[in-house]
Amino acid sequence: MKEIPGGVCAVRGVRAHGIKEGRDGLAMITGEGESAGVFTKNKIIAAPLVITREHLAGHRLSAVVANSGCANAFTGTRGLADAARTAEMVADRFEVTVDSIGVASTGVIGAPLDMDWIENRIDSVIAGLSDAQEGSAAAALAIMTTDTCSKEFAVELSSGVRIGGIAKGSGMICPNMATMLAFVYTDADLLHETLDSCLKHAVDRSFNMIVVDGDTSTNDMVLLTATAAAEEDGLDENVFQEGLDYVCTELAKMIARDGEGAEKFIEARVTGAETEEDAKKTAKAIVQSPLVKTAVHGGDPNWGRVIAAVGYSGADIDPDLISLTLCGVMVVDCGRIIDGAVVEMSGKDIRIAVDLGLGAGGAVAWGCDLTCEYVRINAEYTS
Amino acid sequence: MKEIPGGVCAVRGVRAHGIKEGRDGLAMITGEGESAGVFTKNKIIAAPLVITREHLAGHRLSAVVANSGCANAFTGTRGLADAARTAEMVADRFEVTVDSIGVASTGVIGAPLDMDWIENRIDSVIAGLSDAQEGSAAAALAIMTTDTCSKEFAVELSSGVRIGGIAKGSGMICPNMATMLAFVYTDADLLHETLDSCLKHAVDRSFNMIVVDGDTSTNDMVLLTATAAAEEDGLDENVFQEGLDYVCTELAKMIARDGEGAEKFIEARVTGAETEEDAKKTAKAIVQSPLVKTAVHGGDPNWGRVIAAVGYSGADIDPDLISLTLCGVMVVDCGRIIDGAVVEMSGKDIRIAVDLGLGAGGAVAWGCDLTCEYVRINAEYTS
Repeated sequence: MKEIPGGVCAVRGVRAHGIKEGRDGLAMITGEGESAGVFTKNKIIAAPLVITREHLAGHRLSAVVANSGCANAFTGTRGLADAARTAEMVADRFEVTVDSIGVASTGVIGAPLDMDWIENRIDSVIAGLSDAQEGSAAAALAIMTTDTCSKEFAVELSSGVRIGGIAKGSGMICPNMATMLAFVYTDADLLHETLDSCLKHAVDRSFNMIVVDGDTSTNDMVLLTATAAAEEDGLDENVFQEGLDYVCTELAKMIARDGEGAEKFIEARVTGAETEEDAKKTAKAIVQSPLVKTAVHGGDPNWGRVIAAVGYSGADIDPDLISLTLCGVMVVDCGRIIDGAVVEMSGKDIRIAVDLGLGAGGAVAWGCDLTCEYVRINAEYTS
Repeated sequence: MKEIPGGVCAVRGVRAHGIKEGRDGLAMITGEGESAGVFTKNKIIAAPLVITREHLAGHRLSAVVANSGCANAFTGTRGLADAARTAEMVADRFEVTVDSIGVASTGVIGAPLDMDWIENRIDSVIAGLSDAQEGSAAAALAIMTTDTCSKEFAVELSSGVRIGGIAKGSGMICPNMATMLAFVYTDADLLHETLDSCLKHAVDRSFNMIVVDGDTSTNDMVLLTATAAAEEDGLDENVFQEGLDYVCTELAKMIARDGEGAEKFIEARVTGAETEEDAKKTAKAIVQSPLVKTAVHGGDPNWGRVIAAVGYSGADIDPDLISLTLCGVMVVDCGRIIDGAVVEMSGKDIRIAVDLGLGAGGAVAWGCDLTCEYVRINAEYTS
């Protein structure tokens, strides 16, 4: 497996484009094939997710259209009609069935879509569709909200199969999917059932393991489409899974690194948990703790806050078996504080490793520091 | 029931005093009687809590000693010995059994108590013990950490019984008890079993319903002692419960209002939930959401974030039945957005009312806004 440029357009059979005008943006990706999706666990589900989930009953998508600026969430029957109408517009242009169109939105909750704005731009987005690197870049840019950089990643497996994706997300980012969108494509020839199980596996270890603020969005969605356009030289499903995990993890880490106002990146690696579930809980509690996040921001090796987060995570623990390593320096060894341990936390990448000493469960979570800039961005979002 | 001055010393049979020197403080409260306690749900339990819980097996306390500056948490066998030794010092001075002494600590996790500092000051704290208002004030001051004001409250019931308490807490404040200590006394004549059930009831509706940052501390403790020193004119247990709820709620609200860096106070009132548990989850999710907290900070009526928090709270909901009132202005009525609703959010007290429209469950939670000052305080705590 090797990293390749081109983002989502690295995948054969995929074209993309997008435009961004101030806060609003419109992106499109085309690529026909078997598809799978993962959606927010928030019980308030935005209209485009309801529509896309219905369309996925057919197991195949031919295009995805996504707007930024308005989430089309908590918008009732009008919101559903607007999301369906957006899909119809795209289906009409491509002369495909409407249920092969995915729709996504990100932005302010509780405001209706500006349908005229979308209708007036959809033809120019279609006209700009490209299978070159620029196409992916334009689409990745168009779905940004408070993101400070666009997020693209692609790999080529040894079989020649490619997997590439774009993502967005910066705030309202929490373990169970957040205001994050990711569109991942592969030119492998795989059926819906395989894509579905592979996507769930990958999302659980990537997008579901990042935290910016702990708020789970109403609009999270990850879509995966297989165009079957590669001339495969035999594809092992485990190899595909590994590649998909890698692409999703890299995109997820880009989101954590670009958390609203973030200056530092945090990785919490938990080993020795009783179960994998316990390891996940513990790792997420650490990267979600406002006190850990502010300590990281200040470069303050206040490891007691990590221990407190481990304690309230809900995982089974034994204080006397916990070991903690901060930025490569062990500060607690099987419950004993190591006197005189000097931790240097001025770097941009803060690695926290916790060994619970109980079992074989392991997990990694990613997050970012909590800064004044986060407060500033979110105190002034709509007004 | 009427509010009275004097804090914990309003209660007959209670004396208190405390000293504060920079970050360190030492407080003592004396008052002999049946007692009950509630402790943190964090699985890392600080040494003083382990010791106090053991002592409470005897159901009676005669004094409580609390230090600020060092949490004596995650300090192993040395921490347990230090907490036990602190209790012994007090027991020796008063010639009482050591299991009648409660011990509490708040401050940095993972550092040992400075026993010399405590031993050198304990006699002067005892010498200063007073049953006047100043005694309560000095004790309330001595247990402060990042608190900007001390927290005392007392009431007198119509039967003449008094209930008074002091509390501290500002950061690491979360639903299931936080770095918060509260010492509540009553001069009613009640047995341990009654005190225990009344205290659990009160704490569930007060201290367990406040959120500053969502971090559950290793050191949370609420103690209640009944001195039986009142000349009661008949005490109805429901009336006592009402009084205790009131005292605990007022102390809890003081903590939320004095959250680290807080400029605004938030009250989230949820009605119409399927169950009381669902109402609690929803109310706490709202006051814990960093995005709601920053919106309140910016005076931004971004109610979509409240809806998103309701959606991920875990409570049963139906989007079409939700009504939302922000600062007295209804913005959503049974799932329909009210066009043109103008919400004024520049005040210091922000009231959020959500009616889930499903059942009879209700709850109230309290919190504060998220500010740059919170980030500044916590980025620089130990270093």
